[in-house]
Amino acid sequence: MSIENLFYAVPAASLIALLFAFIFYRQMKKEDEGTPTMKQIAQYVREGAMAYLKQQYKVVVIVFVILAVFFAVLAYGFHVQNTWVPFAFLTGGFFSGLAGFIGMMTATFASGRTANACRKSLNGGLKVAFRSGAVMGLTVVGLGLLDIALWWIILNAFVVEASEAQKLVVITTTMLTFGMGASTQALFARVGGGIYTKAADVGADIVGKVESDLPEDDPRNPATIADNVGDNVGDVAGMGADLYESYCGSILSTMALGASAFYAVSPEMQMKAIIAPMLIAAVGVVLSVISIFTVRTKEGAGMGQLLKSMSVGTNLAAILSGVATFGILALVFGTGNSDWWHFGLSVVAGLAAGVIIGKATEYYTSHSYRPTQKLAESSETGPATVIISGVGLGMRSTAIPVITIAAAIILAFLCATGFNLDIMADGVLSKGLYGVAIAAVGMLSTLGITLATDAYGPIADNAGGNAQMSELDPEVRERTDVLDALGNTTAATGKGFASGSAALTALALLASYIEEIKIALQRAGEAIVGVGGKIIEQASDASILDVLSNYNVSLMNPAVLAGVFIGAMMAFLFCGLTMDAVGRAASKMVVEVRRQFREIKGILTGEGTPDYKRCVEISTKAAQHEMLVPALIAIIVPVLTGVVLGVAGVLGLLIGGLGAGFVLAVFMSNSGGAWDNAKKYVEEGHLGGKGSDSHHATVVGDTVGDPFKDTSGPSLNILIKLMSMVSIVMAGLTVGAHLL
Amino acid sequence: MSIENLFYAVPAASLIALLFAFIFYRQMKKEDEGTPTMKQIAQYVREGAMAYLKQQYKVVVIVFVILAVFFAVLAYGFHVQNTWVPFAFLTGGFFSGLAGFIGMMTATFASGRTANACRKSLNGGLKVAFRSGAVMGLTVVGLGLLDIALWWIILNAFVVEASEAQKLVVITTTMLTFGMGASTQALFARVGGGIYTKAADVGADIVGKVESDLPEDDPRNPATIADNVGDNVGDVAGMGADLYESYCGSILSTMALGASAFYAVSPEMQMKAIIAPMLIAAVGVVLSVISIFTVRTKEGAGMGQLLKSMSVGTNLAAILSGVATFGILALVFGTGNSDWWHFGLSVVAGLAAGVIIGKATEYYTSHSYRPTQKLAESSETGPATVIISGVGLGMRSTAIPVITIAAAIILAFLCATGFNLDIMADGVLSKGLYGVAIAAVGMLSTLGITLATDAYGPIADNAGGNAQMSELDPEVRERTDVLDALGNTTAATGKGFASGSAALTALALLASYIEEIKIALQRAGEAIVGVGGKIIEQASDASILDVLSNYNVSLMNPAVLAGVFIGAMMAFLFCGLTMDAVGRAASKMVVEVRRQFREIKGILTGEGTPDYKRCVEISTKAAQHEMLVPALIAIIVPVLTGVVLGVAGVLGLLIGGLGAGFVLAVFMSNSGGAWDNAKKYVEEGHLGGKGSDSHHATVVGDTVGDPFKDTSGPSLNILIKLMSMVSIVMAGLTVGAHLL
Repeated sequence: MSIENLFYAVPAASLIALLFAFIFYRQMKKEDEGTPTMKQIAQYVREGAMAYLKQQYKVVVIVFVILAVFFAVLAYGFHVQNTWVPFAFLTGGFFSGLAGFIGMMTATFASGRTANACRKSLNGGLKVAFRSGAVMGLTVVGLGLLDIALWWIILNAFVVEASEAQKLVVITTTMLTFGMGASTQALFARVGGGIYTKAADVGADIVGKVESDLPEDDPRNPATIADNVGDNVGDVAGMGADLYESYCGSILSTMALGASAFYAVSPEMQMKAIIAPMLIAAVGVVLSVISIFTVRTKEGAGMGQLLKSMSVGTNLAAILSGVATFGILALVFGTGNSDWWHFGLSVVAGLAAGVIIGKATEYYTSHSYRPTQKLAESSETGPATVIISGVGLGMRSTAIPVITIAAAIILAFLCATGFNLDIMADGVLSKGLYGVAIAAVGMLSTLGITLATDAYGPIADNAGGNAQMSELDPEVRERTDVLDALGNTTAATGKGFASGSAALTALALLASYIEEIKIALQRAGEAIVGVGGKIIEQASDASILDVLSNYNVSLMNPAVLAGVFIGAMMAFLFCGLTMDAVGRAASKMVVEVRRQFREIKGILTGEGTPDYKRCVEISTKAAQHEMLVPALIAIIVPVLTGVVLGVAGVLGLLIGGLGAGFVLAVFMSNSGGAWDNAKKYVEEGHLGGKGSDSHHATVVGDTVGDPFKDTSGPSLNILIKLMSMVSIVMAGLTVGAHLL
Repeated sequence: MSIENLFYAVPAASLIALLFAFIFYRQMKKEDEGTPTMKQIAQYVREGAMAYLKQQYKVVVIVFVILAVFFAVLAYGFHVQNTWVPFAFLTGGFFSGLAGFIGMMTATFASGRTANACRKSLNGGLKVAFRSGAVMGLTVVGLGLLDIALWWIILNAFVVEASEAQKLVVITTTMLTFGMGASTQALFARVGGGIYTKAADVGADIVGKVESDLPEDDPRNPATIADNVGDNVGDVAGMGADLYESYCGSILSTMALGASAFYAVSPEMQMKAIIAPMLIAAVGVVLSVISIFTVRTKEGAGMGQLLKSMSVGTNLAAILSGVATFGILALVFGTGNSDWWHFGLSVVAGLAAGVIIGKATEYYTSHSYRPTQKLAESSETGPATVIISGVGLGMRSTAIPVITIAAAIILAFLCATGFNLDIMADGVLSKGLYGVAIAAVGMLSTLGITLATDAYGPIADNAGGNAQMSELDPEVRERTDVLDALGNTTAATGKGFASGSAALTALALLASYIEEIKIALQRAGEAIVGVGGKIIEQASDASILDVLSNYNVSLMNPAVLAGVFIGAMMAFLFCGLTMDAVGRAASKMVVEVRRQFREIKGILTGEGTPDYKRCVEISTKAAQHEMLVPALIAIIVPVLTGVVLGVAGVLGLLIGGLGAGFVLAVFMSNSGGAWDNAKKYVEEGHLGGKGSDSHHATVVGDTVGDPFKDTSGPSLNILIKLMSMVSIVMAGLTVGAHLL
């Protein structure tokens, strides 16, 4: 079988994923949604969520149309860009939005049904929630592979270049631009959804829990429906778009690096390097589907067994994927030379890094371990020490993930090059970077199941909300709480893979940026002044180092240094804007809830009905309004940096943003997670339990942690990659117009 | 007059500074210290502060001896280091410690006297406090120039090298190592002092203000003496050591860069480039002394006039210094070519950046402006929104300083090279970096007076404490509060210069590191594989770019990328450790104060006497114990990175640490400052005033902000520079022993 034909495994895997997503969706829909009250509450949440998503997509469509027109002008008016860019950009955005929409629709149908299933048994609830999470997981990977497969087929049919080698480079770099569409969509989804959910959550907590001593999800709290809607638009739709972007980004950047790393070798080797990441992803899909079926327990299983069952599923998928990767690489590259196992070891380095980061996340954020327990203990001296200790914990917790990622980068690079770090030698640098990129693909290959374990969390959470508001038996709420807690633990592993792969993918995108600059120079017909001052007339003959040399990209170039500062600042500015947005929106929510408590009679005794809709509107409007500025800054700053500081400045920007952004993201996510669990620890009866001063102090910590872990932190991973994607797409403009 | 003889202006300026410091000290000592109670309280604080400093110096001496022995082994045992290093290292630490000691002793004598002067008039208080602050300012610059002058004379007499050009390079790079001594001392002083002061402050606030509704500095609060001691050991001694390090670091790195930038031109040009920064500093000392005398107002002056008087002093010094710089440069370089005004423009770029950063700091942290007022308003929805908004504010506030610094780097570079960014051209890169370095010298040249405005703040603060505890007329406290508030405003400008110059100096140190690597290669007798693969047998003939090329230092080298991640992480880890230290120590303090309230009868009615000493001991012990780990990590990580990842890894580490560390420092300082002033805004009667829920919420914010702005944030500037200094001193080891 020829290598080219192996490609057809990709659309096949895509269809398998979408088929099983559909099957699981149908299964879920067949379940009973419970009592009339339960149905009504689910209806409220569903309507709120759908209404929000429609609003969000309206704004996003406008932004996409403007950007697409801009790209079209660059492409058709100034010829500084590939003519496919506007279309690829749009499909990336479309499929990403679709994945979020399907996932969220499923979640809003599933949460009521999960609550209802929990009335009978924990195991039943697990099955409904987990399978519904799997719909999201499989939709994301299915649509991702579909988009990749479609563009591969289209571009192969239409792109005409002087040589086969050049054609493959152009196809793969063009495909990268659909990644920018996905990134843009993801940023809006994460930021908008994140602001929505946390405005509602923070607002509900402050007035409900702190001021009025109501429990979580109490139907008397007017913000409670908005809070539950928020779980869907933020934690489900936002996360779906986010991981769609990571998944496609890692595959696309590996393909692009493969095409360039083996450009000088042969078109056959290029093709192998391009097909390999797609195949690893395709096989990962099948392994994910198989593993999803292993997640089941006997009736009457306890928490421990449930956790085991779910871990078995994800670990099985990861181990099988690691093994399968070696098989795929042997099949694609042949066992004639050592490339196949060299790249295989790179993937193992990536997988190991994912596991270690996941474990570290769990250690620092779970209240089974000392750090979070100590954080909880700091509540004995009030909210201020809770905040200080939580910030301290999050900052310290960056050490292990960062050292792990640093080691993974070096190991993946060294493995891929056969333990050669002489980057000046021919081809070593691009081969090593290809190794880093394929490690990220390996980490995300089993996204189908890891995302299922992630997406199932908010479904269980919402099921708990439904149970509470429908005033079901407390036992039901206890069961959904068990499911939710379980989700938090498995999600830690998922987060490790997501953030680790984001860092590796961003690095791959950095290398892809340099490739794109090469193509832009070629399009402009300019020669390159390569290493040692040698003039290279054909840009395609230039290496990564030649391009860097052409633009005087050195660590001591002031444009690079200025770029590094601005990149690091971007991460902070972006978080600052989103934190502020949540603060402002939450304040509005608090004012509204207080007003309702004051003006609607009998609301606190359960005799009056709160105006849920008003709170939903506040969150919707705030999210719409607040998401624009941070998102636009993320798009505009790389463009401006390119125009003013040139290629050197952009590379500085991206490296500064990656370094500071990754560490800041780990800090914010872990601080937030630890605050959340410290509160849960107290609620479990430690340090005075619910209602004590310690509890109030940890509620303040949890409230502060909400935007840390669910708005600003996770958006950073997208910011880093979006800035790279924008730079890649704008490479032509940078080459043509830089001032310094 | 020959250029060499101009050098004698440096020891002369040093003596002038020390002379006026002594005069001001004598003037202050002549003032009356007030009532017996006032004297006693001042005595308590003085004893506590001195006891702490002795303890701290004991620990530091041990660390210094160990490091000096280690350096001696490297120098005399393995010949990978200059034989002067251990001695230079020790003197840097000694003078830095001495400056902190003198400044603190002055402050502890001055605060009681300031309180007493405030019993008569505001203006009298201002004079005592400000002149005492000037003792610190002039001692720092005086001792700094003294150390520089001594080593310049000694090394000129003893160093023997093959050529005059080489001799100047060796002398200046050797002198850099006394910067490492100063940095190490500064880190211990800032971290130890910062932990001490904030453990006491946070502890005192939580139990005193939040739990027991006592005012600030109430004598019934057992932690109040410790809190006042803390102001001295943290804000005075810590800051003194910190700025001693910045001041010397900027001059020394400029000298080293000057020696190498003009190495290939002529020894005469080298000498000019070395003398110029020393002369700018020397003239700045004289201008500072003159300007200090201009700070005086008529009797009965209001706050506005006081502020104006102080601003006139600092602005006058800055403007005169800018003008004088052009004169000095014309004198040194001659007006025959354009170098003199090119470098002059670099200095202007630096000065302008300092002013802009100062103004931005003021805008974001003063409650005269909207950001902090809005932050105060967020207190209406409780402590959680105060924290969220404060974090958001601090993160947003990084934008202007970072863009300013990025612009200043590029402008200082471009001005110095005559608007040439072609870093591949001969000598352009080193000349441009010399421009960046000299801009930092310009910013710090008037440190004598800017530090006076900074150091005077804690003196006024302590005077207020003394007035409160001595139960003086409330009018006295009001006067000291005015002085304190005034200090906060002028300190914002000072902070702009301090952090801006730290960033520029760190960049200069980065370049000096590469020079040091060259010397290490030379010592080892190794050839350099320069740009384009050319072999350079004499390392001294190599350019910065050649050294980078020799070590494959490229932005896409995985060792560089791994280094960038680790560098960014270091900033967070370091802050996390110091935040945690404060949290832990403050908890101990809270427990102790609660115990005293419980066990000592009549303490809250003023009938029982609190056990102040126990609280002082807790802070002392905690600071001792907690400062070691963060300080040692800052020293060990660069060494390890050098050994494992080599030169490329170290450069990545330093750039990542600089980028992320600078932004993180701005964020933490500004968040902390804004929280502090938001509280003051409420205390002035807004939003319900003292005792309201809003007030309680802003007190939580202020408490969280304490370690942000006074422990972790300011330590970061030192961390960044210490890591560079360690790398410079360890260059020989890195060259000899790197693994990758």
